[in-house]
Amino acid sequence: MTDPLAARELAEEAAALDAADPLAAKRAEFDLDPAVAYFDGNSLGAPPKHVAERLTTVVREQWGRRLIRSWAEGWWAAPERVGERIAPLVGAGPGQVVVADSTSVDVFKTLVAAVRANPGRDEILLDAGTFPTDGYVAGQVARLTGHTVRRVPVAGLAAAVDERTAVVLANHVDYVSGRLHDMASVTAAAHRAGALVVWDLCHSVGAIPVRLDECEVDFAVGCTYKFLNGGPGSPAFVYLARRWRDTFDQPLAGWAGHADPFAMEPDYRAATGAGRARSGTPDLLSLLALDAALDVWDDVDLAVLREKGLALGDFFFRCLDGLLPGTEAATPRGPARGHQVSVHDPGGERTMTALHERGVLGDFRPPDVLRFGLAPLYTRYAEVLRAVTTLREVRASAR
Amino acid sequence: MTDPLAARELAEEAAALDAADPLAAKRAEFDLDPAVAYFDGNSLGAPPKHVAERLTTVVREQWGRRLIRSWAEGWWAAPERVGERIAPLVGAGPGQVVVADSTSVDVFKTLVAAVRANPGRDEILLDAGTFPTDGYVAGQVARLTGHTVRRVPVAGLAAAVDERTAVVLANHVDYVSGRLHDMASVTAAAHRAGALVVWDLCHSVGAIPVRLDECEVDFAVGCTYKFLNGGPGSPAFVYLARRWRDTFDQPLAGWAGHADPFAMEPDYRAATGAGRARSGTPDLLSLLALDAALDVWDDVDLAVLREKGLALGDFFFRCLDGLLPGTEAATPRGPARGHQVSVHDPGGERTMTALHERGVLGDFRPPDVLRFGLAPLYTRYAEVLRAVTTLREVRASAR
Repeated sequence: MTDPLAARELAEEAAALDAADPLAAKRAEFDLDPAVAYFDGNSLGAPPKHVAERLTTVVREQWGRRLIRSWAEGWWAAPERVGERIAPLVGAGPGQVVVADSTSVDVFKTLVAAVRANPGRDEILLDAGTFPTDGYVAGQVARLTGHTVRRVPVAGLAAAVDERTAVVLANHVDYVSGRLHDMASVTAAAHRAGALVVWDLCHSVGAIPVRLDECEVDFAVGCTYKFLNGGPGSPAFVYLARRWRDTFDQPLAGWAGHADPFAMEPDYRAATGAGRARSGTPDLLSLLALDAALDVWDDVDLAVLREKGLALGDFFFRCLDGLLPGTEAATPRGPARGHQVSVHDPGGERTMTALHERGVLGDFRPPDVLRFGLAPLYTRYAEVLRAVTTLREVRASAR
Repeated sequence: MTDPLAARELAEEAAALDAADPLAAKRAEFDLDPAVAYFDGNSLGAPPKHVAERLTTVVREQWGRRLIRSWAEGWWAAPERVGERIAPLVGAGPGQVVVADSTSVDVFKTLVAAVRANPGRDEILLDAGTFPTDGYVAGQVARLTGHTVRRVPVAGLAAAVDERTAVVLANHVDYVSGRLHDMASVTAAAHRAGALVVWDLCHSVGAIPVRLDECEVDFAVGCTYKFLNGGPGSPAFVYLARRWRDTFDQPLAGWAGHADPFAMEPDYRAATGAGRARSGTPDLLSLLALDAALDVWDDVDLAVLREKGLALGDFFFRCLDGLLPGTEAATPRGPARGHQVSVHDPGGERTMTALHERGVLGDFRPPDVLRFGLAPLYTRYAEVLRAVTTLREVRASAR
């Protein structure tokens, strides 16, 4: 059914692209199973090789030998310190990023802070295609603050925001389709209408060169276990723009966000800057695993990363066209996409299970989407070809 | 100044007590620095020896080899599974304990759920001596729900709770004095007045045989990095009594608490049971470090643990009486205490720094309290004597 010439040409192209890949050497920094082609780095990034050893040192030395003294020797300040390492990846100057809690919890903090900062308005405008947890949390915020939630596709947010809107919550990259939204224009439209903006960067941080400061974003949250490879469920981060450093007023104001936590004052006084987004005692083992994982970014040029991410996607589409013509992708072919290709498949979850059995690890999202994450730090073009070739086999055997 | 006879008798007594200690063998399961006498297990428990290796396996095998598949192979259910391991330590039957987030965040969840479950009342009654974060969070809950916070010492809570009280939030063991409060009587008084109760177990779990089911407690939260030795900032747990399994209505209702999280439904439907207290993606590395650390409890009789905890405290007091007569303790001498001894000291933080320099690791709490945590799984009577002997030296040299 397929032109064998196409397969051979694609194999030659993959080899040439891998040979010319400026990030090819990065792959060696990751602990990857050679038997597997991993396409879920947009859901759980692969482990950098040195993380396990670093964690052992944290447990044996920092915890085991320094014990309680470690809190004063770096642990307590780690959320801000690691935040500063994430800052350049999201286009944030110093003092604006802190690692804390989960994305869900951080969405709650930033949304409540935003509605508190913008009184006299009664609406939260929500990306209609949002990852579900953002919608659930927005509903809870609305319920507690007396706001209503209106859901609008991101493409319509700029037109929909109005004088009732306290805050807009949008995903930078759609988790199902991988579509990339225009942070600058949505943020500007929201500000023109007097609304604040919270961006969810879960699917863009570590993939797209995010420009929070440049876009004058108010608040952002993001996850660290996808393209940042921080480990399963590693803690999320919060960005709060410098202009909010003294007024960000969040509802999970626990002792870790206090200006002087160890004074044990009965009343809350928020710290200045990103630290005021902290809540409880930080989860150090996960945080320091993330800290170690971030080492791989030290010498990465985000423009090169982005270029490879798009090129991996372009090649994925060429493989689809050559080997599975007519396959419908949920992901746009132009550059307005993140680092994943999502494909509609009538077999849905069964197809993905069959791919897993053949060592191609993507994931499935309802109702019928196969997602293939493309992690430029370790994904090879040859693996992209393997994914599509294997998908073709699975479909053929399902007939 | 001190009777040398007293010192010798105390040393003999310590040796006899250590020789007869039914938990003596447990100490070998911990990675302890032989140069240090550790008295901060009430703040950061010492690492069980096998945790580092277990974490390495989690990183290399579960994360590195099974990758995204690990979520279906145990990760996603780990918060409930590890919760079931904590349940017997707090007197909870199955299905009522889940590990999630920090204590601060969990206090927020349970307080909001409690005021939602008890409408028509406008007050949160708060333990006046609470660890600060509980008070900060209670203030935020009150602000969001229109309640007021009234602070009353725990001893006065039973008399203070009235028809305005929606919920009582109290600490089972006071973090400064180590005083143990009467869970049964406070809970019963609250219920008689129509109020609900949230207990903070941070300083009692792993020390006192807690009896949540027996006391008919509604909700509880607790931390796992103190007497449970889960690691720095390891995640907290939430208890919700069986009768709340279908109605616990919490404000951080993220996707992890959804009845069918991977269906990606736009609307929230809470899971049944303790799982509905989950919020975002669980922090697996910390959670599985905690899971490993809990192994040391498998063969511990809590009655024996409690007996040794009280005996260590009794011996601490005898050492004080013999070596530092007249020293004022903040901790009651009777059995209404947790596993710590707190001592007022005019030198305060300077004294504790000097103790640290001499290898005796306790901590300091304002304004003038030195805290010495007693962890029956690894604290030796000889170390108690060393702590008091060293305190005497420090005081003598400060003169």
